[in-house]
Amino acid sequence: MNDKIRIVLVNPSHPGNIGAAARAMKNMGLRSLYLVDPQKFPHPEAIYRASRADGIVKNAVVVQTLDEAIKNCVYVFGASTRDRVMSSPVLNVREMSEKIINECADDEVAIVFGRERTGLNDAEIRRCQYQVKIPAVEDYSSLNLAAAVQVVTYELRMAMLTQDVVLAKDNKGESVDLATAGELEGLYQHLEEVMAEIGFLNTNKPRMMMSRFRKIFNHAELDKEDVNLLRGMLKRILAF
Amino acid sequence: MNDKIRIVLVNPSHPGNIGAAARAMKNMGLRSLYLVDPQKFPHPEAIYRASRADGIVKNAVVVQTLDEAIKNCVYVFGASTRDRVMSSPVLNVREMSEKIINECADDEVAIVFGRERTGLNDAEIRRCQYQVKIPAVEDYSSLNLAAAVQVVTYELRMAMLTQDVVLAKDNKGESVDLATAGELEGLYQHLEEVMAEIGFLNTNKPRMMMSRFRKIFNHAELDKEDVNLLRGMLKRILAF
Repeated sequence: MNDKIRIVLVNPSHPGNIGAAARAMKNMGLRSLYLVDPQKFPHPEAIYRASRADGIVKNAVVVQTLDEAIKNCVYVFGASTRDRVMSSPVLNVREMSEKIINECADDEVAIVFGRERTGLNDAEIRRCQYQVKIPAVEDYSSLNLAAAVQVVTYELRMAMLTQDVVLAKDNKGESVDLATAGELEGLYQHLEEVMAEIGFLNTNKPRMMMSRFRKIFNHAELDKEDVNLLRGMLKRILAF
Repeated sequence: MNDKIRIVLVNPSHPGNIGAAARAMKNMGLRSLYLVDPQKFPHPEAIYRASRADGIVKNAVVVQTLDEAIKNCVYVFGASTRDRVMSSPVLNVREMSEKIINECADDEVAIVFGRERTGLNDAEIRRCQYQVKIPAVEDYSSLNLAAAVQVVTYELRMAMLTQDVVLAKDNKGESVDLATAGELEGLYQHLEEVMAEIGFLNTNKPRMMMSRFRKIFNHAELDKEDVNLLRGMLKRILAF
Protein backbone atom coordinates (compact mmCIF):
# COMPACT_ATOMS: atom_id res chain seq x y z
CA MET A 1 0.00 0.00 0.00
CA ASN A 2 2.59 2.56 1.08
CA ASP A 3 4.51 2.25 -2.16
CA LYS A 4 1.37 3.06 -4.11
CA ILE A 5 1.15 6.49 -2.50
CA ARG A 6 3.52 9.00 -4.02
CA ILE A 7 4.33 12.50 -2.86
CA VAL A 8 4.74 14.95 -5.76
CA LEU A 9 6.48 18.28 -5.21
CA VAL A 10 5.91 20.74 -8.04
CA ASN A 11 8.77 23.11 -8.79
CA PRO A 12 10.20 23.32 -5.26
CA SER A 13 12.74 26.13 -4.85
CA HIS A 14 14.51 25.14 -1.62
CA PRO A 15 16.44 21.85 -1.62
CA GLY A 16 16.20 21.82 2.18
CA ASN A 17 12.45 21.38 1.86
CA ILE A 18 12.93 18.38 -0.42
CA GLY A 19 15.13 16.75 2.22
CA ALA A 20 12.78 17.61 5.07
CA ALA A 21 9.82 16.27 3.09
CA ALA A 22 11.72 13.01 2.50
CA ARG A 23 12.39 12.71 6.23
CA ALA A 24 8.72 13.30 7.02
CA MET A 25 7.81 10.57 4.52
CA LYS A 26 10.22 8.05 5.98
CA ASN A 27 9.06 8.78 9.52
CA MET A 28 5.54 7.89 8.40
CA GLY A 29 6.43 4.89 6.26
CA LEU A 30 6.24 6.32 2.73
CA ARG A 31 9.06 6.41 0.20
CA SER A 32 7.89 7.29 -3.31
CA LEU A 33 8.91 10.90 -4.06
CA TYR A 34 8.42 12.68 -7.41
CA LEU A 35 9.93 16.06 -8.15
CA VAL A 36 8.51 18.14 -10.98
CA ASP A 37 11.09 20.55 -12.35
CA PRO A 38 12.90 21.20 -9.03
CA GLN A 39 14.88 24.45 -9.06
CA LYS A 40 17.99 23.06 -7.32
CA PHE A 41 18.40 19.33 -7.42
CA PRO A 42 20.40 17.30 -6.66
CA HIS A 43 21.77 19.45 -3.84
CA PRO A 44 23.72 18.70 -0.63
CA GLU A 45 21.17 20.62 1.47
CA ALA A 46 18.48 18.13 0.44
CA ILE A 47 20.64 15.24 1.62
CA TYR A 48 21.53 17.01 4.86
CA ARG A 49 17.97 17.85 5.83
CA ALA A 50 16.79 14.35 4.91
CA SER A 51 18.92 12.94 7.72
CA ARG A 52 18.55 9.15 7.51
CA ALA A 53 15.94 9.52 4.74
CA ASP A 54 18.65 10.36 2.18
CA GLY A 55 17.75 7.21 0.27
CA ILE A 56 14.34 8.67 -0.56
CA VAL A 57 15.99 11.82 -1.89
CA LYS A 58 18.46 9.84 -4.00
CA ASN A 59 15.69 7.67 -5.45
CA ALA A 60 13.37 10.59 -6.16
CA VAL A 61 11.90 10.53 -9.68
CA VAL A 62 12.60 13.85 -11.40
CA VAL A 63 10.23 14.79 -14.24
CA GLN A 64 9.56 17.97 -16.16
CA THR A 65 5.76 18.18 -16.03
CA LEU A 66 3.00 17.43 -13.56
CA ASP A 67 1.37 15.19 -16.16
CA GLU A 68 4.38 12.88 -16.19
CA ALA A 69 4.32 12.68 -12.41
CA ILE A 70 0.68 11.64 -12.15
CA LYS A 71 -0.10 9.90 -15.41
CA ASN A 72 -0.58 6.35 -14.13
CA CYS A 73 -2.38 7.48 -10.98
CA VAL A 74 -6.00 6.66 -10.36
CA TYR A 75 -6.43 9.18 -7.59
CA VAL A 76 -4.76 12.59 -7.60
CA PHE A 77 -5.09 14.94 -4.66
CA GLY A 78 -3.85 18.54 -4.85
CA ALA A 79 -2.89 20.32 -1.63
CA SER A 80 -3.92 23.94 -1.69
CA THR A 81 -4.85 26.57 0.86
CA ARG A 82 -6.92 28.39 -1.73
CA ASP A 83 -10.65 28.60 -1.76
CA ARG A 84 -12.26 25.91 -3.79
CA VAL A 85 -10.85 26.08 -7.29
CA MET A 86 -12.75 23.23 -8.84
CA SER A 87 -16.30 22.83 -7.93
CA SER A 88 -15.45 19.34 -6.71
CA PRO A 89 -15.55 18.73 -3.01
CA VAL A 90 -12.63 20.03 -0.97
CA LEU A 91 -11.43 17.42 1.49
CA ASN A 92 -9.46 18.05 4.61
CA VAL A 93 -6.35 15.94 5.14
CA ARG A 94 -8.09 13.50 7.45
CA GLU A 95 -10.93 12.90 5.02
CA MET A 96 -8.43 12.41 2.21
CA SER A 97 -6.41 9.93 4.24
CA GLU A 98 -9.43 7.88 5.16
CA LYS A 99 -10.51 7.87 1.53
CA ILE A 100 -7.10 6.69 0.35
CA ILE A 101 -6.78 3.97 2.93
CA ASN A 102 -10.36 2.76 2.54
CA GLU A 103 -10.88 3.05 -1.19
CA CYS A 104 -7.58 2.94 -3.02
CA ALA A 105 -6.23 -0.44 -1.99
CA ASP A 106 -4.31 -1.29 -5.15
CA ASP A 107 -4.48 1.99 -7.00
CA GLU A 108 -1.65 4.38 -7.62
CA VAL A 109 -2.28 7.56 -5.65
CA ALA A 110 -0.56 10.93 -5.96
CA ILE A 111 -0.63 13.76 -3.46
CA VAL A 112 0.59 16.93 -5.13
CA PHE A 113 2.17 19.93 -3.37
CA GLY A 114 2.89 23.28 -5.03
CA ARG A 115 5.66 25.83 -4.88
CA GLU A 116 6.80 27.30 -1.56
CA ARG A 117 5.53 30.79 -2.28
CA THR A 118 2.66 30.40 -4.66
CA GLY A 119 1.45 26.82 -4.29
CA LEU A 120 -0.32 25.09 -7.16
CA ASN A 121 -1.84 27.22 -9.90
CA ASP A 122 -5.44 26.83 -11.07
CA ALA A 123 -4.57 24.63 -14.03
CA GLU A 124 -2.57 22.31 -11.79
CA ILE A 125 -5.35 22.05 -9.23
CA ARG A 126 -7.78 21.22 -12.02
CA ARG A 127 -5.53 18.31 -13.03
CA CYS A 128 -6.29 16.82 -9.60
CA GLN A 129 -9.56 15.11 -8.80
CA TYR A 130 -9.68 16.47 -5.30
CA GLN A 131 -8.46 19.59 -3.65
CA VAL A 132 -7.09 18.97 -0.18
CA LYS A 133 -6.80 21.47 2.62
CA ILE A 134 -4.89 21.51 5.85
CA PRO A 135 -7.21 23.40 8.18
CA ALA A 136 -4.81 26.14 9.28
CA VAL A 137 -5.96 29.50 10.65
CA GLU A 138 -7.46 31.73 8.03
CA ASP A 139 -5.07 34.66 8.15
CA TYR A 140 -1.93 32.54 8.17
CA SER A 141 -2.83 29.44 6.28
CA SER A 142 0.32 28.65 4.32
CA LEU A 143 2.45 25.96 5.94
CA ASN A 144 6.08 25.38 5.15
CA LEU A 145 6.22 22.82 2.33
CA ALA A 146 7.88 20.07 4.37
CA ALA A 147 5.53 20.78 7.29
CA ALA A 148 2.56 20.27 4.96
CA VAL A 149 4.06 16.97 3.79
CA GLN A 150 4.52 16.02 7.45
CA VAL A 151 0.87 16.64 8.29
CA VAL A 152 -0.33 14.71 5.25
CA THR A 153 1.96 11.72 5.81
CA TYR A 154 1.10 11.69 9.51
CA GLU A 155 -2.62 11.53 8.74
CA LEU A 156 -2.03 8.76 6.22
CA ARG A 157 -0.19 6.77 8.86
CA MET A 158 -2.93 7.37 11.42
CA ALA A 159 -5.48 6.17 8.88
CA MET A 160 -3.37 3.08 8.14
CA LEU A 161 -3.00 2.28 11.82
CA THR A 162 -6.77 2.37 12.27
CA GLN A 163 -7.38 0.49 9.03
CA ASP A 164 -8.43 -2.66 10.84
CA VAL A 165 -11.36 -0.83 12.35
CA VAL A 166 -12.20 0.56 8.96
CA LEU A 167 -12.03 -2.80 7.19
CA ALA A 168 -14.65 -4.09 9.55
CA LYS A 169 -16.91 -1.29 8.31
CA ASP A 170 -18.81 -1.62 5.07
CA ASN A 171 -16.44 -3.33 2.69
CA LYS A 172 -17.83 -2.93 -0.78
CA GLY A 173 -16.32 -6.21 -1.92
CA GLU A 174 -16.46 -5.69 -5.64
CA SER A 175 -13.34 -4.12 -7.06
CA VAL A 176 -13.72 -1.72 -9.95
CA ASP A 177 -11.02 -0.80 -12.38
CA LEU A 178 -10.99 2.96 -11.98
CA ALA A 179 -9.88 5.25 -14.77
CA THR A 180 -6.40 6.75 -14.49
CA ALA A 181 -5.75 10.49 -14.50
CA GLY A 182 -4.48 10.15 -18.08
CA GLU A 183 -7.68 8.42 -19.21
CA LEU A 184 -9.79 11.10 -17.58
CA GLU A 185 -7.75 13.80 -19.26
CA GLY A 186 -8.33 12.06 -22.60
CA LEU A 187 -12.06 12.08 -21.91
CA TYR A 188 -12.06 15.78 -21.04
CA GLN A 189 -10.18 16.70 -24.18
CA HIS A 190 -12.50 14.61 -26.30
CA LEU A 191 -15.50 16.17 -24.59
CA GLU A 192 -14.18 19.67 -25.15
CA GLU A 193 -13.57 18.97 -28.86
CA VAL A 194 -17.05 17.57 -29.39
CA MET A 195 -18.70 20.38 -27.46
CA ALA A 196 -16.83 22.89 -29.62
CA GLU A 197 -17.80 20.99 -32.78
CA ILE A 198 -21.51 21.02 -32.01
CA GLY A 199 -21.33 24.67 -31.03
CA PHE A 200 -22.21 24.13 -27.39
CA LEU A 201 -18.94 25.34 -25.98
CA ASN A 202 -19.24 28.77 -27.59
CA THR A 203 -22.65 29.45 -26.20
CA ASN A 204 -21.23 29.46 -22.70
CA LYS A 205 -18.10 30.56 -20.95
CA PRO A 206 -15.98 27.68 -22.19
CA ARG A 207 -13.57 27.44 -19.26
CA MET A 208 -16.29 27.55 -16.65
CA MET A 209 -18.27 25.01 -18.58
CA MET A 210 -15.38 22.59 -18.86
CA SER A 211 -14.69 23.07 -15.14
CA ARG A 212 -18.22 22.04 -14.40
CA PHE A 213 -17.97 18.99 -16.63
CA ARG A 214 -14.74 18.04 -14.86
CA LYS A 215 -16.38 18.48 -11.49
CA ILE A 216 -19.25 16.22 -12.50
CA PHE A 217 -17.06 13.44 -13.85
CA ASN A 218 -14.33 13.71 -11.23
CA HIS A 219 -16.96 13.32 -8.59
CA ALA A 220 -18.43 10.31 -10.37
CA GLU A 221 -15.24 8.25 -9.87
CA LEU A 222 -15.41 6.82 -13.35
CA ASP A 223 -14.10 3.36 -14.06
CA LYS A 224 -12.60 2.37 -17.39
CA GLU A 225 -15.93 1.14 -18.79
CA ASP A 226 -17.61 4.41 -17.87
CA VAL A 227 -14.96 6.30 -19.80
CA ASN A 228 -15.45 3.98 -22.78
CA LEU A 229 -19.20 4.55 -22.68
CA LEU A 230 -18.85 8.31 -22.53
CA ARG A 231 -16.28 8.43 -25.31
CA GLY A 232 -18.43 6.12 -27.41
CA MET A 233 -21.28 8.57 -26.96
CA LEU A 234 -19.06 11.48 -27.97
CA LYS A 235 -18.00 9.70 -31.16
CA ARG A 236 -21.61 8.91 -31.97
CA ILE A 237 -22.66 12.54 -31.55
CA LEU A 238 -20.35 13.59 -34.34
CA ALA A 239 -21.32 10.62 -36.53
CA PHE A 240 -24.99 11.49 -36.18
CA MET B 1 -8.09 28.64 25.06
CA ASN B 2 -5.22 28.82 22.58
CA ASP B 3 -3.21 31.16 24.76
CA LYS B 4 -3.43 28.67 27.60
CA ILE B 5 -1.51 26.07 25.57
CA ARG B 6 2.23 26.66 25.48
CA ILE B 7 4.88 24.91 23.47
CA VAL B 8 8.11 24.34 25.41
CA LEU B 9 11.36 23.52 23.59
CA VAL B 10 14.07 22.18 25.86
CA ASN B 11 17.63 23.07 24.93
CA PRO B 12 17.14 23.30 21.15
CA SER B 13 20.41 23.45 19.24
CA HIS B 14 19.28 24.75 15.82
CA PRO B 15 17.73 28.23 15.72
CA GLY B 16 16.09 27.29 12.41
CA ASN B 17 13.98 24.75 14.27
CA ILE B 18 12.83 27.42 16.72
CA GLY B 19 11.64 29.55 13.81
CA ALA B 20 9.99 26.64 12.02
CA ALA B 21 8.25 25.60 15.25
CA ALA B 22 6.94 29.15 15.65
CA ARG B 23 5.57 29.10 12.12
CA ALA B 24 3.86 25.76 12.75
CA MET B 25 2.29 27.22 15.89
CA LYS B 26 0.99 30.32 14.15
CA ASN B 27 -0.42 28.24 11.27
CA MET B 28 -2.45 26.32 13.83
CA GLY B 29 -3.49 29.25 16.02
CA LEU B 30 -1.08 28.97 18.94
CA ARG B 31 1.40 31.63 20.05
CA SER B 32 2.87 30.91 23.47
CA LEU B 33 6.45 29.66 23.04
CA TYR B 34 8.89 28.88 25.87
CA LEU B 35 12.55 28.13 25.27
CA VAL B 36 14.54 26.35 27.96
CA ASP B 37 18.24 27.17 27.69
CA PRO B 38 18.35 27.44 23.87
CA GLN B 39 21.86 27.01 22.46
CA LYS B 40 21.68 29.86 19.95
CA PHE B 41 19.07 32.47 20.62
CA PRO B 42 18.22 35.08 19.53
CA HIS B 43 19.44 34.23 16.04
CA PRO B 44 18.60 35.52 12.54
CA GLU B 45 17.97 31.97 11.30
CA ALA B 46 15.11 31.65 13.79
CA ILE B 47 13.51 34.82 12.44
CA TYR B 48 14.05 33.76 8.84
CA ARG B 49 12.50 30.33 9.23
CA ALA B 50 9.59 31.76 11.21
CA SER B 51 8.46 33.65 8.14
CA ARG B 52 5.44 35.71 9.23
CA ALA B 53 5.50 34.07 12.66
CA ASP B 54 8.51 36.13 13.71
CA GLY B 55 6.38 37.78 16.41
CA ILE B 56 6.11 34.44 18.21
CA VAL B 57 9.91 34.07 18.14
CA LYS B 58 10.46 37.61 19.42
CA ASN B 59 7.95 37.12 22.22
CA ALA B 60 9.29 33.70 23.22
CA VAL B 61 9.89 33.35 26.95
CA VAL B 62 13.46 32.23 27.56
CA VAL B 63 14.12 30.42 30.84
CA GLN B 64 16.98 28.37 32.23
CA THR B 65 15.16 25.30 33.55
CA LEU B 66 12.20 23.14 32.58
CA ASP B 67 10.67 23.82 35.99
CA GLU B 68 10.46 27.53 35.27
CA ALA B 69 8.80 26.82 31.92
CA ILE B 70 6.03 24.65 33.35
CA LYS B 71 5.59 25.86 36.90
CA ASN B 72 2.10 27.36 36.59
CA CYS B 73 0.82 24.61 34.34
CA VAL B 74 -1.93 22.23 35.40
CA TYR B 75 -1.26 19.72 32.65
CA VAL B 76 2.19 18.93 31.29
CA PHE B 77 2.70 16.60 28.34
CA GLY B 78 6.16 15.40 27.32
CA ALA B 79 6.76 14.38 23.70
CA SER B 80 9.04 11.38 23.44
CA THR B 81 9.60 8.50 21.06
CA ARG B 82 10.95 6.38 23.90
CA ASP B 83 9.20 3.43 25.46
CA ARG B 84 7.12 4.30 28.46
CA VAL B 85 9.30 6.06 31.01
CA MET B 86 6.73 6.95 33.65
CA SER B 87 4.12 4.52 34.85
CA SER B 88 1.41 6.89 33.62
CA PRO B 89 -0.30 6.06 30.38
CA VAL B 90 1.39 6.96 27.14
CA LEU B 91 -0.99 8.91 24.91
CA ASN B 92 -0.74 9.39 21.19
CA VAL B 93 -1.00 12.94 19.87
CA ARG B 94 -4.65 12.62 18.97
CA GLU B 95 -5.61 11.33 22.39
CA MET B 96 -3.62 14.12 24.02
CA SER B 97 -5.29 16.75 21.88
CA GLU B 98 -8.77 15.51 22.65
CA LYS B 99 -7.92 15.43 26.33
CA ILE B 100 -6.63 18.99 26.27
CA ILE B 101 -9.57 20.38 24.34
CA ASN B 102 -12.19 18.48 26.32
CA GLU B 103 -10.75 18.60 29.82
CA CYS B 104 -8.44 21.56 30.20
CA ALA B 105 -10.77 24.44 29.42
CA ASP B 106 -9.24 27.12 31.63
CA ASP B 107 -6.07 25.42 32.71
CA GLU B 108 -2.55 26.27 31.66
CA VAL B 109 -1.19 23.44 29.54
CA ALA B 110 2.41 22.79 28.48
CA ILE B 111 3.60 20.48 25.73
CA VAL B 112 7.30 19.83 26.11
CA PHE B 113 9.71 18.84 23.32
CA GLY B 114 13.31 17.68 23.86
CA ARG B 115 16.62 18.21 22.12
CA GLU B 116 17.03 17.48 18.39
CA ARG B 117 19.37 14.55 18.91
CA THR B 118 18.52 13.08 22.25
CA GLY B 119 15.02 14.24 23.09
CA LEU B 120 13.90 14.59 26.71
CA ASN B 121 15.85 12.70 29.35
CA ASP B 122 14.19 10.46 31.95
CA ALA B 123 14.13 13.12 34.63
CA GLU B 124 12.46 15.57 32.29
CA ILE B 125 9.85 13.06 31.16
CA ARG B 126 9.04 12.37 34.82
CA ARG B 127 8.34 16.09 35.32
CA CYS B 128 5.47 15.66 32.87
CA GLN B 129 2.18 14.04 33.80
CA TYR B 130 1.79 12.33 30.46
CA GLN B 131 4.17 11.00 27.91
CA VAL B 132 3.04 11.67 24.36
CA LYS B 133 4.02 9.77 21.24
CA ILE B 134 3.76 10.53 17.57
CA PRO B 135 3.14 7.13 15.97
CA ALA B 136 6.02 7.10 13.48
CA VAL B 137 7.46 3.89 12.02
CA GLU B 138 9.46 1.90 14.53
CA ASP B 139 12.86 1.94 12.89
CA TYR B 140 12.80 5.64 12.06
CA SER B 141 10.72 7.23 14.75
CA SER B 142 12.47 10.51 15.43
CA LEU B 143 10.86 13.46 13.70
CA ASN B 144 12.56 16.74 13.07
CA LEU B 145 11.78 19.01 16.06
CA ALA B 146 9.69 21.53 14.12
CA ALA B 147 7.91 18.70 12.29
CA ALA B 148 6.93 17.22 15.65
CA VAL B 149 5.61 20.60 16.77
CA GLN B 150 3.67 20.79 13.49
CA VAL B 151 1.97 17.43 14.06
CA VAL B 152 1.08 18.30 17.65
CA THR B 153 -0.28 21.77 16.85
CA TYR B 154 -2.18 20.37 13.87
CA GLU B 155 -3.89 17.76 16.06
CA LEU B 156 -4.74 20.43 18.63
CA ARG B 157 -6.37 22.50 15.93
CA MET B 158 -8.28 19.51 14.57
CA ALA B 159 -9.54 18.77 18.07
CA MET B 160 -10.61 22.40 18.49
CA LEU B 161 -12.38 22.45 15.13
CA THR B 162 -14.11 19.17 15.89
CA GLN B 163 -15.30 20.57 19.17
CA ASP B 164 -16.60 23.66 17.41
CA VAL B 165 -18.48 21.41 15.03
CA VAL B 166 -19.95 19.53 17.95
CA LEU B 167 -20.87 22.79 19.68
CA ALA B 168 -22.48 24.35 16.64
CA LYS B 169 -23.78 21.31 14.85
CA ASP B 170 -26.18 22.98 12.48
CA ASN B 171 -23.66 25.45 11.10
CA LYS B 172 -23.06 23.45 7.97
CA GLY B 173 -21.25 26.08 5.93
CA GLU B 174 -21.99 26.33 2.26
CA SER B 175 -24.90 24.43 0.89
CA VAL B 176 -25.20 23.32 -2.70
CA ASP B 177 -28.58 23.03 -4.24
CA LEU B 178 -28.63 19.35 -5.14
CA ALA B 179 -30.90 18.08 -7.87
CA THR B 180 -34.07 16.36 -6.74
CA ALA B 181 -34.91 12.78 -7.67
CA GLY B 182 -37.50 14.13 -10.11
CA GLU B 183 -34.95 16.36 -11.81
CA LEU B 184 -32.56 13.44 -12.13
CA GLU B 185 -35.31 11.29 -13.60
CA GLY B 186 -36.03 14.05 -16.12
CA LEU B 187 -32.37 14.08 -17.05
CA TYR B 188 -32.27 10.30 -17.51
CA GLN B 189 -35.35 10.28 -19.73
CA HIS B 190 -34.01 13.13 -21.80
CA LEU B 191 -30.67 11.32 -22.07
CA GLU B 192 -32.36 8.09 -23.16
CA GLU B 193 -34.38 9.91 -25.83
CA VAL B 194 -31.36 11.66 -27.26
CA MET B 195 -29.24 8.51 -27.20
CA ALA B 196 -32.02 6.69 -29.08
CA GLU B 197 -32.34 9.57 -31.53
CA ILE B 198 -28.64 9.58 -32.43
CA GLY B 199 -28.64 5.82 -32.72
CA PHE B 200 -26.30 5.21 -29.79
CA LEU B 201 -28.81 3.37 -27.64
CA ASN B 202 -29.47 0.73 -30.29
CA THR B 203 -25.87 -0.16 -30.73
CA ASN B 204 -25.71 -1.39 -27.15
CA LYS B 205 -27.90 -3.20 -24.73
CA PRO B 206 -30.12 -0.25 -23.96
CA ARG B 207 -31.05 -1.17 -20.40
CA MET B 208 -27.51 -1.90 -19.33
CA MET B 209 -26.31 1.26 -20.95
CA MET B 210 -28.88 3.43 -19.21
CA SER B 211 -28.01 1.70 -15.93
CA ARG B 212 -24.42 2.68 -16.40
CA PHE B 213 -25.33 6.29 -17.19
CA ARG B 214 -27.47 6.36 -14.06
CA LYS B 215 -24.63 4.96 -12.01
CA ILE B 216 -22.27 7.64 -13.29
CA PHE B 217 -24.60 10.55 -12.67
CA ASN B 218 -26.01 9.27 -9.41
CA HIS B 219 -22.49 8.96 -8.09
CA ALA B 220 -21.70 12.50 -9.22
CA GLU B 221 -24.21 14.07 -6.79
CA LEU B 222 -25.43 16.53 -9.39
CA ASP B 223 -26.72 19.92 -8.36
CA LYS B 224 -29.37 21.84 -10.27
CA GLU B 225 -26.84 23.68 -12.41
CA ASP B 226 -25.15 20.42 -13.38
CA VAL B 227 -28.49 19.06 -14.56
CA ASN B 228 -29.11 22.25 -16.56
CA LEU B 229 -25.70 21.96 -18.19
CA LEU B 230 -26.22 18.33 -19.16
CA ARG B 231 -29.73 18.93 -20.51
CA GLY B 232 -28.45 21.95 -22.42
CA MET B 233 -25.88 19.70 -23.99
CA LEU B 234 -28.52 17.11 -24.89
CA LYS B 235 -30.68 19.74 -26.59
CA ARG B 236 -27.70 21.01 -28.50
CA ILE B 237 -26.81 17.52 -29.74
CA LEU B 238 -30.17 17.26 -31.53
CA ALA B 239 -29.98 20.82 -32.85
CA PHE B 240 -26.55 20.15 -34.36
